[in-house]
Parts: sequence; C-alpha cells; structure tokens
Amino acid sequence: MENEFLFKKLSNQYQNIPASFVRSILNVAGKKELISFAGGLPNPDLFPVDELSESAKIVMNRSGRDILQYAGSLGYYPLRQWIANRYSSKYNMDITPEMVVITNGSQQVIDIMAKLFIDKGDGVILEKPSYLGAIQALSAYQPNFCEVDLGKDGADMVGIESFFLNGDVKMMYAVPNAQNPSGISYSLEKRQDLALLLKKYNQFLLEDDPYNEICFEGEFPVPVKKLAPDHVAWTGSFSKMVAPGLRNGWVILPPELVPHFDKAKQSTDLNPNNLTQYVLHHFLTHYDLDAHLKKVQMKYADQCCFMQEMLSKYLPEEITFIQPSGGMFLWLTLPEGICSKELVNRTMERGVIFVPGNSFYVNREKSNHIRLNFSNANFQDIEKGIKVIGEELQKELKQITVSCS
Amino acid sequence: MENEFLFKKLSNQYQNIPASFVRSILNVAGKKELISFAGGLPNPDLFPVDELSESAKIVMNRSGRDILQYAGSLGYYPLRQWIANRYSSKYNMDITPEMVVITNGSQQVIDIMAKLFIDKGDGVILEKPSYLGAIQALSAYQPNFCEVDLGKDGADMVGIESFFLNGDVKMMYAVPNAQNPSGISYSLEKRQDLALLLKKYNQFLLEDDPYNEICFEGEFPVPVKKLAPDHVAWTGSFSKMVAPGLRNGWVILPPELVPHFDKAKQSTDLNPNNLTQYVLHHFLTHYDLDAHLKKVQMKYADQCCFMQEMLSKYLPEEITFIQPSGGMFLWLTLPEGICSKELVNRTMERGVIFVPGNSFYVNREKSNHIRLNFSNANFQDIEKGIKVIGEELQKELKQITVSCS
Repeated sequence: MENEFLFKKLSNQYQNIPASFVRSILNVAGKKELISFAGGLPNPDLFPVDELSESAKIVMNRSGRDILQYAGSLGYYPLRQWIANRYSSKYNMDITPEMVVITNGSQQVIDIMAKLFIDKGDGVILEKPSYLGAIQALSAYQPNFCEVDLGKDGADMVGIESFFLNGDVKMMYAVPNAQNPSGISYSLEKRQDLALLLKKYNQFLLEDDPYNEICFEGEFPVPVKKLAPDHVAWTGSFSKMVAPGLRNGWVILPPELVPHFDKAKQSTDLNPNNLTQYVLHHFLTHYDLDAHLKKVQMKYADQCCFMQEMLSKYLPEEITFIQPSGGMFLWLTLPEGICSKELVNRTMERGVIFVPGNSFYVNREKSNHIRLNFSNANFQDIEKGIKVIGEELQKELKQITVSCS
Repeated sequence: MENEFLFKKLSNQYQNIPASFVRSILNVAGKKELISFAGGLPNPDLFPVDELSESAKIVMNRSGRDILQYAGSLGYYPLRQWIANRYSSKYNMDITPEMVVITNGSQQVIDIMAKLFIDKGDGVILEKPSYLGAIQALSAYQPNFCEVDLGKDGADMVGIESFFLNGDVKMMYAVPNAQNPSGISYSLEKRQDLALLLKKYNQFLLEDDPYNEICFEGEFPVPVKKLAPDHVAWTGSFSKMVAPGLRNGWVILPPELVPHFDKAKQSTDLNPNNLTQYVLHHFLTHYDLDAHLKKVQMKYADQCCFMQEMLSKYLPEEITFIQPSGGMFLWLTLPEGICSKELVNRTMERGVIFVPGNSFYVNREKSNHIRLNFSNANFQDIEKGIKVIGEELQKELKQITVSCS
C-alpha cells in the first residue's frame, strides 16, 4: 500500500467501529438490480413532495437572508416549539421549547450523547439485538457494552437491574417502540418498571423513538420519558414522519443538560441546517400532518401484512416471527443451525438481499435471525423476494437434515 | 442541583472541550443591541438570496423524491464533481470526485478527522493562535496539543520539525490562507517547506481552507495539498463562498482514506443534507459564481480597509496589526500589560464586543491580542465601535502608566 503511514495512524476508537453490513454487501453486489429488504428506507411514494416544494419556495422568499446566515446551535426556535407542543399535548407532558434541540437526524443525538457521557470502558446497556447505527455510533467511544435480552414485551428488567447494581453503567440505549430490528414494543408495565429502575439507581436512558408516529393501530404506550423525565433523553426524527433527506431530528433533554449537549454539538458542526428546518416548520404548520401520517401508517401496515402472508406461503413452517405493531421491519427466527449470513450470500446471487441478524449484535456472533424491511418494496417484489428466500432456505434445511442423518 | 447524578456522569473527553467565548459573552450581555466584531459571520447583504430561492424551486420540482430519500454518505455526486473540477482547474491538480466527501460545513471535517486519528494523548500540532472551533473539536478527543508560533509568512518550521522528530505526532492542523484569527497567509516557500517536512517524516496535515475564495487581490499561493497530495486532507466550505446557513463543506482526501472517513462519518449522522446539496449544485452550475465572488472580495476588502483607517484614527499608536490579504479578521497586538479579556468587559458595557486573544490559545493564557471581524458590520458601526475600543484602551493605558510611575 502506498500510504501505509496513514493506516498506522488510525485511532483505536475508529477501529472499534463495526462496518455496516448493507454497505459491504452492496459493494459486493455491485450495480446489479436487487430486490432489497436490507435498508431501512421509507416509501418514497409517500413523501409529500409538492407540499415541501411549496414550503421551500415560500420560506426562501420570505426569510431567505435569515435562512442563509449562521444560526443558533440549538435549532430554529419555532420548530423546537412545534415539537414541544405536539408531544406535550400527545402525552400530557410539560415539554418546553428550551428542552428541545434540533439535530442532523436522531443519529447525531446518539453520537453527541456518547461524546457527552462515554469515556473508554464505561458501561452502556444495549438491547440484544440493537439498532446497528447505535452500535456503530457508540463503538467509536469504546464503551463496555452490557447486552440485555429482549422479550416480546420489552427488555429483561432483571438483566438491567443487575448491570445497574454493578455500578459502572453510564447510560442505557433503547428503542421501546417498534424496535429496529426486532419490531418489539415495550408493554406499559415494562416502561413503568424501567422508569422505576432508572430513578432507583440514578441511571440515564437514551430513548430512541423514530417510529413513534408509525403505529399501525391506535398509539404506542407512553414514552419512558414521561415516567422518569429527569432520567431520560428522548429522541425523535422527521425521517419517518416526513422525509429522511431533510436530515432533521431532535432530542428532548432534562433542562440542565441542554447547555452541555449544546457545547458538545457545536464542536462537531456548529449548527443544524437552516433551510430544512424552516421548510419543515412551514410544512408542519400549513398542512395536515395527521392525515399524511394516516396514509403512511395504512400503507406500511398493508406492506407488513402482505409480507407476512408471503412468509406463510413460501417459508418453511418452522420459521417464526414477531408481529410488529408499527415501524418498518420484520424479524425472523430461522431454525437452529441455519446461518443467516450464509443464507444472504445465496439469495444475493439470485438478486435478493436482507440483513442477517448478527449485524445487530455487538460481538457479531453467528445468528439464525434475519431482518426484513417491508416499507420500501412493492407487492410484486415482496412476493418475488420472499419466494427466493424460501427456496434457498429449503435447500439449506435439506443440507442440515442430510448432514445430521 | 436536582440532577446531580447526571453531572457526575459527564465524560472526561466532554469536560476537556473549552467554552466558546462568543457564546459566553452573549449570555452575559443578554439581548441588548451590540456592535459585534466578535462572530465570524459573512455579510448577509451579499447572499445570493434570489438565485438560491430559484434553485430551490427548480430542484424540488425536478428531483423532489430523490432529494427527500436517504442518500449516499459521501454526498451528492454532481456536487463532488463540481468541486473536483473547480480546484483541479484552479491549481492544475488531479482531483477526482471520488476523493471529495461532502460534510456539514468544514467544522464536521475537523471532528471526523479527529475521530479517525486521535486517541487520548496523541500529538496534534496547532498554530498559535489557532481557530477556536478547531481547538474545541479536537479537544473532545483529548490530544496532546503541540503549539507552533506563527510568523508573518506562516508557521515556524523549526518548531514543526522538532515535534515531528519527537515522533508521537498524529496530525497537524493549519489554516494557511487568511488564517483565523491572525489573518496571516503562508508564503509559497513556507508551503513548500511544510510539504517537504510532511513527506520526510510521513506526517499528515489537515489543511483548513475556508477563505480560499476570499482573497482581496489575485490569488493565494497554491495549497499544501498540491505539494504533498498523499499527506494532506484539504477542506473547504461553501459558508464563505455562498452562504453558511446551507451547512455544506467538503474535504479532499488521499483516495485510500475515503472509505475510512466515510465509515467514521456515517456513524455520526448517516448522510449530509440532500436539499442544500442539490440547491448548491444548481446555483453553482447556473449562475456566475466568479462574478459573485468578485463582489464579496471587493466588499470585504473595503470593509477591512475602512476598519484599518479607523484603527489608525482612534487607537493609540503603539497598537500594531497584520495586514490580511483576505478572509474576515484583523488581529491586533496591544501594548504589553494590557489584558484583552479585561478590555472586552469594559467595551461590552458600552455595547461593543470582540474576541480577546486568549480564546485562540489552547491554554487560554493571558493575551494582549484581540480579533476583530470586519465582514459583518457597516462603516457607521465600524467607526462607532473602534472609537469605543480606542477610548477604553486609552483609559487602560493611563492606568498602566499611573501604576508604573
């Protein structure tokens, strides 16, 4: 290698960041057309393109000069106010705009929270499986990951308490609504138990809630933030509600933490994008967001339901999955002995990809789970893709039977 | 304090980030009207508001759906191509779009480069004085700062070589064109010397170049990147060329480093803002950027020149300053014994602020320098503000004389 000296200089913290499976597999697959259940992409047919175009035109004409200048690092005040109002009213909470900070998607919240709390070796509790982007962001700070199992109604509270008792935990990270990748939502009881534990042990939770508005029927239970406001940073995103290309998310913090989060964030990129903040605020205050969300929820519920039908039609009976109440993913459990990473190599040759379960574990150990995204594929591709996965699975199962007999 | 447990959890790395003087002083000053020479704000009268509005309208109508989806973390390819073409042609270099990564302003480049290279205790060479935002971003990684003096034609090469010889340096950070805060530009000889040192000792430079296009007469000498391409990450920004509210900058990297920079960046915020990338690309390819830059250069040269006249008119003769050939700042040296931090407390009471020199030193030691921003104040305010600074300086000087006599 020509520039070998450069690679010798790479930091330990950087080298601790795991690669993204989706990116690696796309590099291997090259440019050929794929049916992808791998990414976590919203359905672009649902983007309110015309409305956002109109909003962009109006705000640039009205406030162009302000939009184009440097701005406050906490974000555009009216947008912070809109967020405070919506969630205060949705959950009967007392959120002020001063508690809200706008970020580059909720991904940036994870990075900044880690910067704020995690020195090398500090304990961070994670659900197992957990969101790959969180594992990546946190890994850059070289924490000691403490994984707790996820049951059908949320994380294992005994596991959490034993880590809290241990004493060197700085933070817990969790996605209580329609978790990525498992689709699991915490029951109200689990949320209450977690809130009690946080208070009892003076611990802190980063509650990541990107799918809050993508619930297929009714609403998710209240956020843990409501139950233990001083002990939770609650982060949300416009990526799934409106559109991810705008790159705007937010976090609702205990008020005393705001100046610290702000200082850590300033050092990374000064302030969030003004144009998209103004556009979003105009869109949210001039169009019917709830009607838009209704469309998204119904469409995703349909896509989810159809994918489940196809799974029943084309996959062996032994495969189980959790019925998600929202979000964008199905999490399958394959029979013991099947390696989902080997499976994806086979299906990829036939033009179908998904994310094997080991990507969502800190130690990347072998896994018989797979994550399927249902929000960004049409019915035809869903049927075609699931059929291919089913056929390749059958082959794998036969091999297992043969080698066992 | 109610949430004391939270503060006990703050990381050492976070606590190592120094506060921003501008922010602290604005908190003290409250909301009263100030003449500010403190910030580093471009002149908003020069923003191409109408053109960018038109561009926003066109790209949203044409490519709304693509703009609103998640996108590649390296940035919008046509914009990367535009950057590669412009600087390949300006400096007769061989830059390909694949070497260019789009970021949230060049501030994000500093954060990501630090994440990529700096573990706690690693050596980083900095100019003294240096850009406050860089000191903040780098401090979060707890480096061992190695400061080298800045002469009128660039950094002290003997100092740099002695740190390189020492052996545990990971990176150097420098602003060779119209440096913030000093206004100093490196001579061609200094650039050549630095390039030789980088190659000789296999060292790496982050060359921060936000003022590249704000040269008052002719052009700055060639970037160090041209002289040692494998040993330099060269970062630029649309903030001063077009408008900072768009929050788009870039870095040009040795090709082998791109996937690593990309992985570190993904973990912090997935991908840069699409809307502003498309808007910028449309603006840059449909309007006359060079005519726009000519206006900015002339205006800033005028403002700089007028501020210098006012300094000669109102400030004691002992004050010296460096004549900048571009950028947005004047860097004053006050007589020995004057503490610029005390001076700003006096002028602030009379509604005038600037940044005292100690903000630009790693150890914040007492300083008799001050930084004045000339790009964002009209002639009337410049005269009024400099007069106040002159009067308060005279008072300080008298006190020194009295206390010495």
